[in-house]
Amino acid sequence: MYRTHTCGELNAEHIGQEVTLSGWVQKVRDLGSVIFVDLRDRYGITQLSFNEENKELLEQARKLGREFVVQAKGKVIERASKNKKIPTGDIEILVDELNILNEAKTPPFTIEDQTDGGEELRMKYRYLDIRRNPVKEKLIFRSKVTQAVRNYLTDQGFIDVETPYLIKSTPEGARDFVVPSRMHPGHFYALPQSPQTFKQLLMVGGMDKYMQIVKCFRDEDLRADRQPEFTQIDCEMAFVEQEDILNTFEGLVKHLLKEIHGIEIEKFPRMSYDEAMRKYGNDKPDIRFGMEFGDLTEAAKGKGFNVFDQQEAILGIAVPGAANYTRKQIDKITDWVKRPQIGAKGMVYVKYNEDGSFKSSVDKFYTQEDLKKWAEITNAKPGDLILVLSGDLDTTRTQLSALRMEMAEQLGLRKPDEFAPLWVVDFPLLEWDEETKRYHAMHHPFTAPKPEDAHLLDTKDPRIVRANAYDLVLNGNEIGGGSIRIHDKQMQAKMLNLLGFSDEEAQKQFGFLMNAFEYGAPPHGGLAFGLDRLVAILGGQETIRDYIAFPKNNAGRDVMIDAPDTISQEQLEELHLQIIKDKE
Amino acid sequence: MYRTHTCGELNAEHIGQEVTLSGWVQKVRDLGSVIFVDLRDRYGITQLSFNEENKELLEQARKLGREFVVQAKGKVIERASKNKKIPTGDIEILVDELNILNEAKTPPFTIEDQTDGGEELRMKYRYLDIRRNPVKEKLIFRSKVTQAVRNYLTDQGFIDVETPYLIKSTPEGARDFVVPSRMHPGHFYALPQSPQTFKQLLMVGGMDKYMQIVKCFRDEDLRADRQPEFTQIDCEMAFVEQEDILNTFEGLVKHLLKEIHGIEIEKFPRMSYDEAMRKYGNDKPDIRFGMEFGDLTEAAKGKGFNVFDQQEAILGIAVPGAANYTRKQIDKITDWVKRPQIGAKGMVYVKYNEDGSFKSSVDKFYTQEDLKKWAEITNAKPGDLILVLSGDLDTTRTQLSALRMEMAEQLGLRKPDEFAPLWVVDFPLLEWDEETKRYHAMHHPFTAPKPEDAHLLDTKDPRIVRANAYDLVLNGNEIGGGSIRIHDKQMQAKMLNLLGFSDEEAQKQFGFLMNAFEYGAPPHGGLAFGLDRLVAILGGQETIRDYIAFPKNNAGRDVMIDAPDTISQEQLEELHLQIIKDKE
Repeated sequence: MYRTHTCGELNAEHIGQEVTLSGWVQKVRDLGSVIFVDLRDRYGITQLSFNEENKELLEQARKLGREFVVQAKGKVIERASKNKKIPTGDIEILVDELNILNEAKTPPFTIEDQTDGGEELRMKYRYLDIRRNPVKEKLIFRSKVTQAVRNYLTDQGFIDVETPYLIKSTPEGARDFVVPSRMHPGHFYALPQSPQTFKQLLMVGGMDKYMQIVKCFRDEDLRADRQPEFTQIDCEMAFVEQEDILNTFEGLVKHLLKEIHGIEIEKFPRMSYDEAMRKYGNDKPDIRFGMEFGDLTEAAKGKGFNVFDQQEAILGIAVPGAANYTRKQIDKITDWVKRPQIGAKGMVYVKYNEDGSFKSSVDKFYTQEDLKKWAEITNAKPGDLILVLSGDLDTTRTQLSALRMEMAEQLGLRKPDEFAPLWVVDFPLLEWDEETKRYHAMHHPFTAPKPEDAHLLDTKDPRIVRANAYDLVLNGNEIGGGSIRIHDKQMQAKMLNLLGFSDEEAQKQFGFLMNAFEYGAPPHGGLAFGLDRLVAILGGQETIRDYIAFPKNNAGRDVMIDAPDTISQEQLEELHLQIIKDKE
Repeated sequence: MYRTHTCGELNAEHIGQEVTLSGWVQKVRDLGSVIFVDLRDRYGITQLSFNEENKELLEQARKLGREFVVQAKGKVIERASKNKKIPTGDIEILVDELNILNEAKTPPFTIEDQTDGGEELRMKYRYLDIRRNPVKEKLIFRSKVTQAVRNYLTDQGFIDVETPYLIKSTPEGARDFVVPSRMHPGHFYALPQSPQTFKQLLMVGGMDKYMQIVKCFRDEDLRADRQPEFTQIDCEMAFVEQEDILNTFEGLVKHLLKEIHGIEIEKFPRMSYDEAMRKYGNDKPDIRFGMEFGDLTEAAKGKGFNVFDQQEAILGIAVPGAANYTRKQIDKITDWVKRPQIGAKGMVYVKYNEDGSFKSSVDKFYTQEDLKKWAEITNAKPGDLILVLSGDLDTTRTQLSALRMEMAEQLGLRKPDEFAPLWVVDFPLLEWDEETKRYHAMHHPFTAPKPEDAHLLDTKDPRIVRANAYDLVLNGNEIGGGSIRIHDKQMQAKMLNLLGFSDEEAQKQFGFLMNAFEYGAPPHGGLAFGLDRLVAILGGQETIRDYIAFPKNNAGRDVMIDAPDTISQEQLEELHLQIIKDKE
């Protein structure tokens, strides 16, 4: 037996016991006649002690290097100088037998909470990075969250059903990863972007409440913090309305917040998509802080300020307590919004001084009275700084939304230990894509229009049709989204036509689903959470990578195992494939 | 709200309540002035009743077809003629409002426990097949088993870690499915055959107790009841010896047998690979019944029976109570063993009559005394039938093992509600492959030799080296297997060399793992269960297909969604691929 205890559990109660521990050498302190070794495992650190009473052992201990794997047997004794910072700090092990289980080369970075290893190096040696507490604890945290999710949902009667990974490529949505079939030359499976159609078929199959924590795949050009494979908590319910779904999954997230953080939230607020866009310029607003948009378009036009007079929209936010910002500080913000990533042409500011007076960059055009009106509209208080952007409505909303988040970040308003969930509902069913000159499904092609809006699908501008689609937003991140689905063949066919599918294409791609709808499909709907992000946000972080055991880099590579890689000519031939070399 | 109750929960206690149910029309019984409708959902069946008091409603009910989806509102009343077979049989719903939620075409097969649909049709309309109780209940059963597994293992401190699906192709083992990379032309990911190397890296990373229920992929020529994608309960532990692993997972299976069947088994028997081969000709013996092999080689040779005298091995089993088999019955068994699938040249039988006398097909060569000796060796009792096969040892064992199972099947000794687990241990490390003229790893290339046998690796016949490898066998099926792993770079390199890898190939394929071993790899080992089979056997079945929601057929096709399928030229070009047409 390699150990009787872990390195995290011994304390004063165990004094006098003979124990065996195994773990990694974290640190060796060689005081000459005494050597202390910090032995580490997943559970903690325990101090081993060696002294001159056993010189052979002392010499052995002297040779230990960092990250050596050792087994130590000995007696638990009280420590002379206690370490109150760790649970095992009252004791140490007076070692009487030491076995080196494996030696270790010096690791390429320090295995400490704060490491000297850069991102690239840590990815290459991910197995060493995982030994570090911050990474290890995030993985353990993820495991706890998933188990809590599963327990909650199965208690609610959900059935965990595994859907297939080798499915069929569909042109809708993002790009598929495909898998060539050896047995069917020239044919390919695709990896699922989500189990969407399968969960709907489970509803047709009467399965009624389905859940799965499942890997999904998207072959997208990777942005920072996007992974080609990601994990979804995927759920679907039959015989439900939107209200049933919102209540069920609000229950789940409440349960997680309670279990993990001891936080109780009575009822999650709800906001329509239109309202979210109007108030925050964004369909996933962070509502941990205010700074709601004020629409200054009417108030600011027609006062001789040409820049504003030409614009579709003039929107402002009141940054709390920032009226005393220096010119330099304000210039920095202006520079920030003018960066190509944001793309604003300029920014107008108004200081609402503590004494009630206003000082702005457009004092030439606006009276104190005018600016007082702006303050009312943006809900500014004395001491606040009003920041104003203008342009066409969509762009200005996007820019001001980014500015709002940036100011909140700067002011420390995005507190990682505060949780502000929000349902955003009543999403539009369709959006128009200028590039391809056709409608895209805002959620996906299986989302049902609101029954009261369905007749508008046949009008000239079906973009006004709303869907029973909803997102769950947490601290400014979309952590989940879903919709009530179409369960009628005709409606599904009409929808696919609207999205540019010919009848023939629709039948080839989704015939199995539309056929299924003819055999008694129940009303149904569902939701999926992005697990990687959900876990990160519950962990108080916004980057997902450390919550993934073996993440890929931004080029989609696993630099540890060096994948993707070439395959043999024999493999290619078996798959009836040939690689096309670039003509250069 | 679509329903206040499910179709499985109303009983006499609810009489008088106004309820709303939704579900599928199972059956309509039209008695003219009264119509009864069986409404079905996942939870059960409830009878709806319509009568002449509401003629309009009666007419509406008359139009309902099988599998229509309806919502019914009404009052729970006591049934005139009760149905004691179902939990809701004491009541019915006197309907006062009926809404057709979706119509249904007549399904292509009956949605009954015993259906008239053939395998192919049921696969194509899998969503209808799932509505049938036997399939639905198997999927629910699977969900319960996986949840029980997760709860047990997380209670034991295991961390559920997701390993990647887009990894690297390795030539060892079965054929990989590969995934072309668009971003890295000419390069491919591979889908994991198992997360083997990743779980070992988690051990190097200090994660200590890992579990995952995970999909694995093998591009094999499919045999019956094999799926290209299958699910594993994958586990690994560090700082453990074989004994720790056996105890941990024996605990898991005990827990499942207790939870699911209320069966308590004190201690699972253990048997060495050698013993299993000797006694049952098979490394996964079904020990629910006896019929252990008797080795008649010595006793049966040298008595003038030429056929036996030439053979390496003569093995027999005693079939209990079959001494009274007719000539015709015995001929049928002989024909059975001579089928090409078994391939025996012939069979010798000995009837051990109730009166103590023997009657055999080789009476010409053997005395009663000789045959009595055979009876002793095969442990036959009066009334038993001894069946004897001969040939080279390996083949004879395989054939007699098949015969033993067949006889047990015929005699009803393979009881689905009896569970006989068995650990088979001390597997050989290597096996020789005649075809490729090289050694194969019996378990996999990461399995460690037994320390006491390791020195034999350098001898001429390393096949005698045993491994700390073990299988868990349940009712004649291998449900899990694993081993103690190599955790030393040199040993891993030597092993890969033995398996035919050059140093360079070993480094290219497994360099990341061998490098990891240099940074303090702990001793570790693990095990994986085949979930599909485990669930089937716990469910008392041996075919796995019905325990998989959307299985593929024997050609690896999903006939419901019609995958694999062609992809567009544009997709191929993005992947820098071209399909090679067969030259014919």
